[in-house]
Amino acid sequence: MNSRIKKCLALLEKADCPALLVSNPLNTVYLTGFSDISGCLLVSLAAKPVFFTNFLYQKAAARIKNCRVVVAEGSQDLLSLIARTVKALKIKRLGFEPDNFTYGQYQVLKAKVDGCGLKLAAVKGFVEKLRMIKEPRELKLIKKSVEITRLALTYAGQIHSQIATEKDLVIEIERFLRLKGDSEIAFNTIVASGGNTVFPHHFSNHTQISNKFFLIDLGSKYYGYCADLTRVFFWGKMPILFKRIYDTVRKSQAAAIKKIKDGARACDVDLAARRIIEKQGWGKYFGHGLGHGIGLAVHEEPRLNSKNTAVLKEGMVVTVEPAVYFKNQFGIRIEDMVLVKKNHSEVLSGDIHR
Amino acid sequence: MNSRIKKCLALLEKADCPALLVSNPLNTVYLTGFSDISGCLLVSLAAKPVFFTNFLYQKAAARIKNCRVVVAEGSQDLLSLIARTVKALKIKRLGFEPDNFTYGQYQVLKAKVDGCGLKLAAVKGFVEKLRMIKEPRELKLIKKSVEITRLALTYAGQIHSQIATEKDLVIEIERFLRLKGDSEIAFNTIVASGGNTVFPHHFSNHTQISNKFFLIDLGSKYYGYCADLTRVFFWGKMPILFKRIYDTVRKSQAAAIKKIKDGARACDVDLAARRIIEKQGWGKYFGHGLGHGIGLAVHEEPRLNSKNTAVLKEGMVVTVEPAVYFKNQFGIRIEDMVLVKKNHSEVLSGDIHR
Repeated sequence: MNSRIKKCLALLEKADCPALLVSNPLNTVYLTGFSDISGCLLVSLAAKPVFFTNFLYQKAAARIKNCRVVVAEGSQDLLSLIARTVKALKIKRLGFEPDNFTYGQYQVLKAKVDGCGLKLAAVKGFVEKLRMIKEPRELKLIKKSVEITRLALTYAGQIHSQIATEKDLVIEIERFLRLKGDSEIAFNTIVASGGNTVFPHHFSNHTQISNKFFLIDLGSKYYGYCADLTRVFFWGKMPILFKRIYDTVRKSQAAAIKKIKDGARACDVDLAARRIIEKQGWGKYFGHGLGHGIGLAVHEEPRLNSKNTAVLKEGMVVTVEPAVYFKNQFGIRIEDMVLVKKNHSEVLSGDIHR
Repeated sequence: MNSRIKKCLALLEKADCPALLVSNPLNTVYLTGFSDISGCLLVSLAAKPVFFTNFLYQKAAARIKNCRVVVAEGSQDLLSLIARTVKALKIKRLGFEPDNFTYGQYQVLKAKVDGCGLKLAAVKGFVEKLRMIKEPRELKLIKKSVEITRLALTYAGQIHSQIATEKDLVIEIERFLRLKGDSEIAFNTIVASGGNTVFPHHFSNHTQISNKFFLIDLGSKYYGYCADLTRVFFWGKMPILFKRIYDTVRKSQAAAIKKIKDGARACDVDLAARRIIEKQGWGKYFGHGLGHGIGLAVHEEPRLNSKNTAVLKEGMVVTVEPAVYFKNQFGIRIEDMVLVKKNHSEVLSGDIHR
């Protein structure tokens, strides 16, 4: 049993939940250490872990150490195998992940274990809690993912003038990210040109790439670990208002980064950034939280926003992405990734031009 | 109200379900006609449809005709808005899609409507049933998607010799698919070289592209509509066994295609193909169903397999993909897309080299 599963079991024991069926794919990746298999993992205090999968992943799953692999044959479904196994292990209370288990799956599993004295319990956040603090080997992969993403930004800066539309630039950027990193990328790249920058989640389309300014929000995956950076590209002389907003967003980001360290509250970091923007009277144009944890998921805990009183801990990695979406004119967002350290923070996407 | 929503309401009325909360994203795309918005759609016999979304999609959602759009502001969540709306509409029985609604969402919605006499009912397949039969305008988009996919196969045939690994060929193929079609593709492209062809769902990796043979399974999306084709590429003289299997798979496919027409049962089409492979003693090496419906989803109803007794109808589009995965040596799969017609079938991916 690996150390991550051991830590997970310790949390479960405290919560009086003797077994957990892990169906969130990123949680199974985290606990097994493999990203190329698909299935459900049963961890329990009673027996060694069991991984349920189908014949497509049988060979890959066999690599998981000290784990029993149960394979669905032909038309057998995983829920039947899971029910049979938890009954055989005489598990009396089985936790499941309510945000990664459909109502349909719940109904089927419940029917299959009915009458055997087993209670299903929706339990949240056990594995996610562990995932918040990054191990050194995870940090290495995250740093590499950031590095690839930075290279892609440089690449975009080199090629954009030969590209007609937002969509086509997205395609070239993603090709680059995938050639250097995993086949998958962290999320759909946003290229927003000119006025499209006012939409934080703009869908890149056939809009012509402006030769004045555009924004790129992008991220590589590297062995499963995500990056997430945003830069605004600008040519020519910045109009005064644009420059004032740009400088304010930079200052806001710097203030937040300065605040980040072990022990700081997420909401206080958000406040440090927000205050600078509010001072200029643009608070209402910064309509989202300051940032989010990042790792195997591009968005994970801890969230940096005005409501989250959670305390940052050494080893967490968060994005810091203040923004001003100015009326219906333009939006400026700058996003970097920051590692929480004992007495300060480290900007992982450090010296790139902002 | 558009004709698709009207048809859906007619089905609901028959099933004594006066309202349905549509959370499957493809079902909302189908019923609204827009693929660039995200949210939930409430259709009911009592009032005009309501689309629930957040501020990111507010502008895009306003284009839906004869539909009320309810937008979550700030930290409001959609489930609260949905609960408030169904209460105001005095809906007594609300259907929801159990395979596209998490247990967590169900619990939250249930708590919010508790005590107001509303019953939540898991109901399946209403919209999916409508989606099976393609309208003429849908067929146009599917044909275009097939066309792009065929061009990508030709492109792959031209460039593969300059590409080192499976993964890199996947990246170039997908770049091509996206430049010609939607930003999204139908599914992760499979390039399987040599022995990797024995895995139907091979994850393309750093395996060198064989100069003897490889398989490509790929599909474009075009305005949301998927294609799904598979071809085996071979150079040089085929070994006798390889050729025998290849010819058998082709014959098997031809037999199935001949069988497809309005009124044929899905299992009989599967049998027509399977029999040809079994006759050679290779039945056990054809471990999956013959094919599947395709449209907004790459895999949808009707499934072509030995158990599905559903009857094919004019206007359905299915894949036909017999295969032989021969021991641990190599796999051959050929996949085309076929339109069900009154008295025969039309191969949409027709004259491409097989």
